[in-house]
Amino acid sequence: MPFITKQFKFCAAHKYWNDNWTESKNIEIFEDDVKVHGHNYELDITLSGHINEESGFVVNISKLKHVVNKYVVNILDHTEIQKDIKWFSGKQPSTENLVLFIWEQIFDRIPDGAKLYKIKLRETPTIYTEYFGPHMEIK
Amino acid sequence: MPFITKQFKFCAAHKYWNDNWTESKNIEIFEDDVKVHGHNYELDITLSGHINEESGFVVNISKLKHVVNKYVVNILDHTEIQKDIKWFSGKQPSTENLVLFIWEQIFDRIPDGAKLYKIKLRETPTIYTEYFGPHMEIK
Amino acid sequence: MPFITKQFKFCAAHKYWNDNWTESKNIEIFEDDVKVHGHNYELDITLSGHINEESGFVVNISKLKHVVNKYVVNILDHTEIQKDIKWFSGKQPSTENLVLFIWEQIFDRIPDGAKLYKIKLRETPTIYTEYFGPHMEIK
Amino acid sequence: MPFITKQFKFCAAHKYWNDNWTESKNIEIFEDDVKVHGHNYELDITLSGHINEESGFVVNISKLKHVVNKYVVNILDHTEIQKDIKWFSGKQPSTENLVLFIWEQIFDRIPDGAKLYKIKLRETPTIYTEYFGPHMEIK
Amino acid sequence: MPFITKQFKFCAAHKYWNDNWTESKNIEIFEDDVKVHGHNYELDITLSGHINEESGFVVNISKLKHVVNKYVVNILDHTEIQKDIKWFSGKQPSTENLVLFIWEQIFDRIPDGAKLYKIKLRETPTIYTEYFGPHMEIK
Amino acid sequence: MPFITKQFKFCAAHKYWNDNWTESKNIEIFEDDVKVHGHNYELDITLSGHINEESGFVVNISKLKHVVNKYVVNILDHTEIQKDIKWFSGKQPSTENLVLFIWEQIFDRIPDGAKLYKIKLRETPTIYTEYFGPHMEIK
Repeated sequence: MPFITKQFKFCAAHKYWNDNWTESKNIEIFEDDVKVHGHNYELDITLSGHINEESGFVVNISKLKHVVNKYVVNILDHTEIQKDIKWFSGKQPSTENLVLFIWEQIFDRIPDGAKLYKIKLRETPTIYTEYFGPHMEIK
Repeated sequence: MPFITKQFKFCAAHKYWNDNWTESKNIEIFEDDVKVHGHNYELDITLSGHINEESGFVVNISKLKHVVNKYVVNILDHTEIQKDIKWFSGKQPSTENLVLFIWEQIFDRIPDGAKLYKIKLRETPTIYTEYFGPHMEIK
Repeated sequence: MPFITKQFKFCAAHKYWNDNWTESKNIEIFEDDVKVHGHNYELDITLSGHINEESGFVVNISKLKHVVNKYVVNILDHTEIQKDIKWFSGKQPSTENLVLFIWEQIFDRIPDGAKLYKIKLRETPTIYTEYFGPHMEIK
Repeated sequence: MPFITKQFKFCAAHKYWNDNWTESKNIEIFEDDVKVHGHNYELDITLSGHINEESGFVVNISKLKHVVNKYVVNILDHTEIQKDIKWFSGKQPSTENLVLFIWEQIFDRIPDGAKLYKIKLRETPTIYTEYFGPHMEIK
Repeated sequence: MPFITKQFKFCAAHKYWNDNWTESKNIEIFEDDVKVHGHNYELDITLSGHINEESGFVVNISKLKHVVNKYVVNILDHTEIQKDIKWFSGKQPSTENLVLFIWEQIFDRIPDGAKLYKIKLRETPTIYTEYFGPHMEIK
Repeated sequence: MPFITKQFKFCAAHKYWNDNWTESKNIEIFEDDVKVHGHNYELDITLSGHINEESGFVVNISKLKHVVNKYVVNILDHTEIQKDIKWFSGKQPSTENLVLFIWEQIFDRIPDGAKLYKIKLRETPTIYTEYFGPHMEIK
C-alpha cells in the first residue's frame, strides 16, 4: 500500500484573541499574533490505499482535487479565518485547530475507496502541523 | 563591485478596494482580493558597493538588518497593510506599491557607503515584484 | 517602473537528434539526451510597466495568465516537444530555443500596455535559461 | 536507531494507456496523461540501522549511491518508462507502481546491514508517493 | 493529537577522523570528509501533545525557541563540532550522532507538557537524518 | 542571445580574522564569524552567447562542468577557505571575495565561445552575492 500526497495552497488572514482573557494576558500569550496578519498556507493531503491495477492509481487525483477544493480551499482561501469561518467561533485559528477542521471536512469524502492518512499544514517556511486523525495516539 | 543580497521575511494581511469604483467594478478587477487575506512575504534587499579590504564586506550585515528591521519589517509585519499603514491610504496594497514604499523607507539609510540596487518582494511562491528605484527605466 | 513576475509550470518530454550528424556524433554531443526523457519546466514571465494608480497593478494577472496559458502552457504541456510542436522542426528542443519560441508566442500579446522584459525557463533544479528578447545584447 | 535519507534525481518521460480500454475511457481516466510528457523525479531513499561506533554512520553513503545508481537511476534516467522498462509491460508508469519497482530493485542490496525503511518519489512539486514495503499496512 | 514542527538553523564545521585507524583507512572510509568543511544545518523539532483549548496551541513556540536556542543552536552554531563540543570527544560528528546529542539536550526540557516526537537534521540538500528517540524501534 | 545558468555546490568551512586588528575589534566587526564554521555553498554560473544552430546549445554543459569542477569546486570543496587556499592569504573569506576568486579562475576558460556573464554565490538561505566582472559598474 503506497501513500500518495497532493499539495494544495491557500492564502488567508487571521488573528488570535481569547475573550475570556484580559488584554495583557492575550498579549503575553499571543504576542504580535493579536493583530491581523496572514500566510501562504501549504496543505499536503496524504492518502493510503490499494493500487487499482487498471489505472495504476491509488486515487484519481482529479476527483481528490474536486473534493479538497470544494470543502477546504474554496472555504479557507481569501478569508480572515476566525471571523469568516463559523467552525472557529470560540476557537483560535491555529494550525493545530485548522488541521482538525480540514480533517472533518474531507474525511468522509475521499474518493475511490482510498483512506485519509495524514494532513500537513505549513503556515510559514519554519512552522507546520501534521494530523493523523482522532484515533492516532503516540504510545 | 559585487552585489550582496540579504533576505527578510514578514507576514501581513491586506485587501484591495477602490472607493471610486462600484462594488461590481471592484470585484471585476480585484476578484477574490476584495476580501481580507494574507501572505508570507519574502523581501530581498540587494546592495552594491566596493569591498572594504579590511573586513572583506561590501556592507556590515548586522547594520543592514538593523535598518531594514526598524524601517520595514517592524512596520509591515503583523499588519493589515492598507488599514494600518498610513502611506497606503488612497493606494492599493499591491507588491508594486509595496516595493515603492520599502524603497523610500531605506534608500537614504543604507550603511557603510553601499548603495541600494534592488528590492525584490515575493508575495506567493509564483508572484514577485522587483524595483530598481525611480531612476531606472528600461530602454 | 517595477518588474512583476508570474511563474507557470508545464511537463514535457523531448529528445535531441541532429539528422545531419552521424549517430556517433549525436551521442558525442547530446550524450544521454538522444533518448526520450522529460522535465517539470518552471517558466517565469517578467513584465515591466507603469503602475495603474487605480488598481495598483502593472498588469492584471488574470489577463496575463489567460495569454500565457493559451499561447504557451496549453501548447507545450504534455507534449514531446521536438515531435509535436511544428516550430521545433529542424531545431533542437533546448531551453535556449524554447525561450525564443515562448518570446515569439507572447511578445505581442502582453495585456494592459505592459512590456515583456524577460523569460526564464528552468529545466532542472540546476539548469535554467533567461532571455531578454532579440534586441538585448551584452556589451 | 536513526533513519538516514539520501536523495537521488532522474529525468524520465512516460504516458498512460490501458489497452483493455476504449480510447474515450483512456482519455476519461488519464486525461492529458495519455500523451507522452516527462518529469524531474526526486527519489528519497530512507534507511534505518544501528550506528557503527567507529565511523559514526548507519550506512556508508558512497556504497548506497553505488547501489541506487546502478539498480535504479541508471535504469530509469532518460527513458520513456512504460516503453523502455520491461517491468512496466502491462502496468501503468504511475509513481505508485514506480515505488514498487524501486523497492524490488534495491531491497536486498542495502549495504552495511542497514534496512530499507521508505521510498519517496516526487513526480511534481505538488505530487509524491511514499512506500514502506509490502508488509506495512495501516490499521 | 497533532504534531507541530518548528525549524531552526545553524552553521557549523566538522571533520571525520578515527584515531584508532590508519590514515589510509580513514581516507578509505571518510574520503574527503577527513578535511575540515562545513554545512548550513536545518533542524526540525517535532512535538506531539494535546491542544490547549484556550490558546489553540500544542506548545508555546516562544518557549520552545528559548529551549532549543539555549541548549542546541547556541551550542552548535559557529563551532567545529568534533573539536569544540565535549560530547563528541571519541565520537564522529555525523548527523546520526548529532541527532542523539540534540535529543539528549532537549528531551527533558520541552515546555507545556508536550512531548518530543522527532528530530530531523538536514546536512545538505540531499542528506538528512531523523530520530524518534532511544525507545523507538522498527519491527 | 540567451543566458544559461548551471548550478554547482560545495561545502566549505571558514572563519574571519584580521591580524591588523585587536581581538575586540575583530569580535566587534566579525561577531561569531571569528570562530570556524561552515556552509553549503550554491554557485550559479551564468553565461551568454549565440545559440549553435546544430546543437541548439549556447554551451556544452559537460564541458562547462569540467571547467568549473576542475578550477572551482575541486579547489574549494572540503576546505577551510582562508587557511587552505593561498589566494585568500591576507584576504577575508567573504562571499564578496569568493566571487572575485571564482571569476578569475574561470573567466578565460569558458568553452564554446560563450562569455561569463555572472557569478552568484549563495552562502546561506538568506544571503548571496552576485558579480558581473571587474568592468561592470552601476551608474
